Amino acid sequence: MITLDVHTGGGSYPVVIGTGSLTRLPELLERHCPGRTVAIISDERVAGLYGQGIREMLESAGTSVHLYHFSPGENAKNSGRLNDLYTWLIETGIRRDDGIIALGGGVTGDLAGFAAATYLRGVPLIQVPTSLLAMVDSSVGGKTGINHPLGKNLIGAFYSPRFVLIDPSLLTTLHPREMTSGLAETVKYGLICDPQLYALLEQRLERIASLEDSDAVSHAVQRCCALKAEVVSGDERENGPRRILNFGHTLGHALEAETGYSIYRHGEAIVWGMRWACFISWQRGCIPEELFLRTERLLTRLIVPPLPADITANALAGRMLHDKKQSSAGLSLVLVTGIGRVRIEPVTGHAKLTERWLAHVTA
Amino acid sequence: MITLDVHTGGGSYPVVIGTGSLTRLPELLERHCPGRTVAIISDERVAGLYGQGIREMLESAGTSVHLYHFSPGENAKNSGRLNDLYTWLIETGIRRDDGIIALGGGVTGDLAGFAAATYLRGVPLIQVPTSLLAMVDSSVGGKTGINHPLGKNLIGAFYSPRFVLIDPSLLTTLHPREMTSGLAETVKYGLICDPQLYALLEQRLERIASLEDSDAVSHAVQRCCALKAEVVSGDERENGPRRILNFGHTLGHALEAETGYSIYRHGEAIVWGMRWACFISWQRGCIPEELFLRTERLLTRLIVPPLPADITANALAGRMLHDKKQSSAGLSLVLVTGIGRVRIEPVTGHAKLTERWLAHVTA
Repeated sequence: MITLDVHTGGGSYPVVIGTGSLTRLPELLERHCPGRTVAIISDERVAGLYGQGIREMLESAGTSVHLYHFSPGENAKNSGRLNDLYTWLIETGIRRDDGIIALGGGVTGDLAGFAAATYLRGVPLIQVPTSLLAMVDSSVGGKTGINHPLGKNLIGAFYSPRFVLIDPSLLTTLHPREMTSGLAETVKYGLICDPQLYALLEQRLERIASLEDSDAVSHAVQRCCALKAEVVSGDERENGPRRILNFGHTLGHALEAETGYSIYRHGEAIVWGMRWACFISWQRGCIPEELFLRTERLLTRLIVPPLPADITANALAGRMLHDKKQSSAGLSLVLVTGIGRVRIEPVTGHAKLTERWLAHVTA
Repeated sequence: MITLDVHTGGGSYPVVIGTGSLTRLPELLERHCPGRTVAIISDERVAGLYGQGIREMLESAGTSVHLYHFSPGENAKNSGRLNDLYTWLIETGIRRDDGIIALGGGVTGDLAGFAAATYLRGVPLIQVPTSLLAMVDSSVGGKTGINHPLGKNLIGAFYSPRFVLIDPSLLTTLHPREMTSGLAETVKYGLICDPQLYALLEQRLERIASLEDSDAVSHAVQRCCALKAEVVSGDERENGPRRILNFGHTLGHALEAETGYSIYRHGEAIVWGMRWACFISWQRGCIPEELFLRTERLLTRLIVPPLPADITANALAGRMLHDKKQSSAGLSLVLVTGIGRVRIEPVTGHAKLTERWLAHVTA
């Protein structure tokens, strides 16, 4: 079991990671939350798997527990669902020192986190991620939010949890596609800042995906969290170093939007996004062809849906310009300069480069 | 012209105060906001008075200006209006380094402030208050939010503006009832922490209300902002000293809620709330009767709607328990111990005390 500290402008919070660490929830709540009442927010699937067990564990420690659940899926991140959650919190009588526990994957963390950030101008939030993607990425760093009919994640807040509790043994109930989606972000951390993690993934990707090598799973989760904690500490609002975490997300987001969020899970789109970013890194001379091919070999071991036959470079390039991460100054990209090394560059002609890339990957 | 600095966990921001200071808007924007585009959010009345002038001033300084306006009134603070504002921001193409200017009273500051806090997870916010209440209270301190069908201000965020620009000459277009509402909060600052301000108000209340004594107006606004800046600095989230600002708000909020927000403007209800809090202070021996009568003499010079004939102590006392400011520990009240001095005390038997107070004020 290890504890990492994430430092933000307003203070710091611990990230506790370890197989079996879920049993420490009552003790951590006692230490980090003033109230003796919690609201657990979860989708129906996760609530069915873990809701009752956690409720009993907390109740025997003297905490009142209320459970709210909703239909799984990205669709839950909308203003209607959020308003329903607010109403439930008010009617349940949740007060400003009570805790909200986001128990689930990225969608739950985003929705419950944004509710915690904005209900009564902010109540204590606890992140208990159950998906690999949420463990290695979304539960740490304070991003919360919902979608708007005109775009994904356009409404939200940076809001620090009181603590994050990561128990990799919860991954045993995860769907294989969700596992791949989380592994994509794991590969991202290797590519942008950790050659050793990258090498570990090259050696044992499939054994990690199948959870056969639980030590490697725990190690990978810990490394990703440590890297994320380091990158976001002191840059919660993404003005500086945190931007390197957007590696692979420029094309990834464009691809998700262009396909109406119906084909790819987030991490699956990011696999395509990383292949695109590595290609551009090679084309612009940041890495030699040999290194580009090495990234291709690992990234193609993550099995994801193919690109749609009718996708065009122009459509993707147009979407990229509308990404909310782009400032009014223009398109800037995170490019690799080696395994574990990146730099951010302004890039012109991204439509042309995307066209060349499409020709390359579909050849 | 003076500049105060408000310090928060995440940094600090300036509050610029002075008659005619509105002309400094272009220069302050240039210094504190990265983008060259702003969205001005205003109700129709304020937009009609000041929108065009500010637009021209900013455009001649090279800034692109977009104007969004809505029907005046507390009703604007709902999730439907907020979603409409989000849609407008997206369609207008406002990006993360562009600024949102909240130009108006408390409702505009709350609504536009919350939109700025949550659009793209936060964009630069500028508060330009046009009402006395917003100048002396709501524009400083970072509170933003909207109402929920089940209660006022239940949804919101603490979000610091980049700067606050207060020009008391904008008060000339204010409705007299709004002036009284703002004066109520001004009296509050005198009562809780500034005997000199209190004495000034005793001497010149009516001349300040009519704006005949513009020096006294400026002085009162500056003192309130300085006091608020001091109180909220280092306690943005209301866990400590900031709680004294709730003086008069426990009964005030209950009265507003019990009358369906249809009779009193916020400050008008706070006048009743302060009279109640002073009465309880006297009854509990925090101040002698003579001092209680002195507060009555000033507070009754603020002309506000009378209490409804059918109001009951039980109804008000019940509402108080549901105030979001109350933690699960029970009712705690800000009481005066002298002019300019307060303490916070747990109070039991508030229903009985309220009954006695009703008998006293309606005698």
